[in-house]
Amino acid sequence: VNPIQKLAEYFSRFPGIGPRQSMRFVYFLLSRDKAYLDELASLIQDIRNQISICTSCFRHFTKNKSENGACNICANTGRDGTKLLVVARDADFESIEKTKSYDGLYFVLGSTIPILEPEPEKVVRLNELLQRIDKEKNITEIIIAMSANPEGENTEDVLREVLRDIALHRTLTITRLGRGLSTGVELEYSDSDTLKNALTGRKE
Amino acid sequence: VNPIQKLAEYFSRFPGIGPRQSMRFVYFLLSRDKAYLDELASLIQDIRNQISICTSCFRHFTKNKSENGACNICANTGRDGTKLLVVARDADFESIEKTKSYDGLYFVLGSTIPILEPEPEKVVRLNELLQRIDKEKNITEIIIAMSANPEGENTEDVLREVLRDIALHRTLTITRLGRGLSTGVELEYSDSDTLKNALTGRKE
Amino acid sequence: VNPIQKLAEYFSRFPGIGPRQSMRFVYFLLSRDKAYLDELASLIQDIRNQISICTSCFRHFTKNKSENGACNICANTGRDGTKLLVVARDADFESIEKTKSYDGLYFVLGSTIPILEPEPEKVVRLNELLQRIDKEKNITEIIIAMSANPEGENTEDVLREVLRDIALHRTLTITRLGRGLSTGVELEYSDSDTLKNALTGRKE
Amino acid sequence: VNPIQKLAEYFSRFPGIGPRQSMRFVYFLLSRDKAYLDELASLIQDIRNQISICTSCFRHFTKNKSENGACNICANTGRDGTKLLVVARDADFESIEKTKSYDGLYFVLGSTIPILEPEPEKVVRLNELLQRIDKEKNITEIIIAMSANPEGENTEDVLREVLRDIALHRTLTITRLGRGLSTGVELEYSDSDTLKNALTGRKE
Repeated sequence: VNPIQKLAEYFSRFPGIGPRQSMRFVYFLLSRDKAYLDELASLIQDIRNQISICTSCFRHFTKNKSENGACNICANTGRDGTKLLVVARDADFESIEKTKSYDGLYFVLGSTIPILEPEPEKVVRLNELLQRIDKEKNITEIIIAMSANPEGENTEDVLREVLRDIALHRTLTITRLGRGLSTGVELEYSDSDTLKNALTGRKE
Repeated sequence: VNPIQKLAEYFSRFPGIGPRQSMRFVYFLLSRDKAYLDELASLIQDIRNQISICTSCFRHFTKNKSENGACNICANTGRDGTKLLVVARDADFESIEKTKSYDGLYFVLGSTIPILEPEPEKVVRLNELLQRIDKEKNITEIIIAMSANPEGENTEDVLREVLRDIALHRTLTITRLGRGLSTGVELEYSDSDTLKNALTGRKE
Repeated sequence: VNPIQKLAEYFSRFPGIGPRQSMRFVYFLLSRDKAYLDELASLIQDIRNQISICTSCFRHFTKNKSENGACNICANTGRDGTKLLVVARDADFESIEKTKSYDGLYFVLGSTIPILEPEPEKVVRLNELLQRIDKEKNITEIIIAMSANPEGENTEDVLREVLRDIALHRTLTITRLGRGLSTGVELEYSDSDTLKNALTGRKE
Repeated sequence: VNPIQKLAEYFSRFPGIGPRQSMRFVYFLLSRDKAYLDELASLIQDIRNQISICTSCFRHFTKNKSENGACNICANTGRDGTKLLVVARDADFESIEKTKSYDGLYFVLGSTIPILEPEPEKVVRLNELLQRIDKEKNITEIIIAMSANPEGENTEDVLREVLRDIALHRTLTITRLGRGLSTGVELEYSDSDTLKNALTGRKE
């Protein structure tokens, strides 16, 4: 087997990479020196040893001895333990954390829930979410932070349904991110739903 | 002069139309029958006679004898006269009205205000807006409905400044459209401002 | 009926124009003065009176008394009457003429021939083309100048078939435009057909 | 240092990859099993050991003992040794070879030559090309196969200049790939240069 083709085939499985760009990656690597290739290879090989999944919020984080499987945010007693913000993926967590406007805790589902998915608990961490809420009695608000697209809406619908029971037995508010005009959006090109939300959510 | 070129030149001044598409328009017209061309020409010639600018909200509307220069919305006593929503252009008015979620009155500025514009009252209807608010004493809320882009923000800033004085002497709340996730927007690709607004504007 | 909507509806039939842009056209016209609208209307109304279709090549041209229905190119005895270049549309004729590299005559089919079209002679001027070739005995080359896409290829195939008979009875070469790398095209992103043609058509 | 960030930083140097996509790559790898990561790492580490640069045409190829540094094409006595096709990069070589329409030999320059580059022999293998032509006396045609863009044109110009001397002392034809309509290109949107070439290069 041709090693160029073989490596290109591996890269072509990367998200968003087609056969042409994967070939470019290989030629790019062939133009690098041995030190670069060795370092890249060792980073790839070690990434899973160095990164843990937090046992509490399930996001990826750099392993460290001291904190018994919890990430630095879950272990941080300074965060507001009454709020739990649920995201689909690590990248969404990062976007929210970057705003520096949220001081509560997180939960990473693992992905969104496809529409008409018959067994959502098999594609995302629904059971783990319920267990965590059940265990942490001081949580009083669940913030569902999904993208404003059909799969995000579906994920929110499923979450609201599975959370309904718990919400009956204790004080638990379920909220979603506010809808309105996103930065850069023009009024003229906005759909009626967005404008309706922007009108009802208007602020001084 | 070549009439094809001459007509194409007129079309090339239409918004968003380049020289190539304007030529296509001419060939398209040459392929239509005489009735179509006559009707189109007469619609263009009459459009200004048939359309008035409302003396109250300054939007374009189909002329009618009965209402003394006011459009059907301004003349409609069923609308909520305590709210005045300010838009830049007719197209924005139409987007809002299409939501069927707003029952107040409107004001069309004419355009947005360019950043650093030294004489904003010469590019938009600032004086007319102030006069209208001054005259209609039952207005208690001004809703600034601008696009979420720099020129929209600038227009809002200027409006808030010119409205400050009036707001001191009577009960007048100045609001803006709510910010948050627009339909279709993905969390991962949202800027921190949008997410901050989505977080603070979260809803049950 | 609302005249704004009605005029917008006319514009929305223009090639490449959707409902949103057609509304913009109307508001653009409402912002022009009466002289502009009158002139535009009269240009539209007169365009068919001022433009003829050449009885020989069928392209549109500005009417003039002297030349008995033939356009300035067909009437120009300085052009090379042994070559007839066949295009689908007036815009294609203009692109070729702009090269200043062709001194023969033209024929405008009216459009391309859709794939599997059962009656091509009803959608393009096949009969008129045959008649012209039959009449002009000094034509020795027919240059088929179609776009390099499936409908262009199909049009060429149909033309070659209908011209086969005539070509048997007199000296008539049927050619097509050369294929190869178009300006701006990168080798890496070229399909094998284009590269094959570029290889066989290589030049010093 | 955070290993996720560090690995992302490596991926962000890959051609065409921004910071966001490089993070996605890392999360993608975190979702793979150990076998996949080990295999990918070992492919990356070994790629330079398994791939040689041909001492004759300078393209990358899978190392093999038997052929003394020459790739399978250069070592193939069945290829036509009178033709040498010069490309900028390996990917261009692959595009040409995929046409199955060329049976001569190749030479990979390494890249194109930037416009106004004062020392082209330092950015591409000009000297190596001259040495090869000098050594292989049965080469009678050099085919310059560059992209149809400014840097491709410049590379061709420089090549023609450095080859002029050799061409004076032996029979050596310098050709370029044919220009014309590329697959998919529409006549109406073609520039005059492309159409001029398509006209002069017309074929039966």
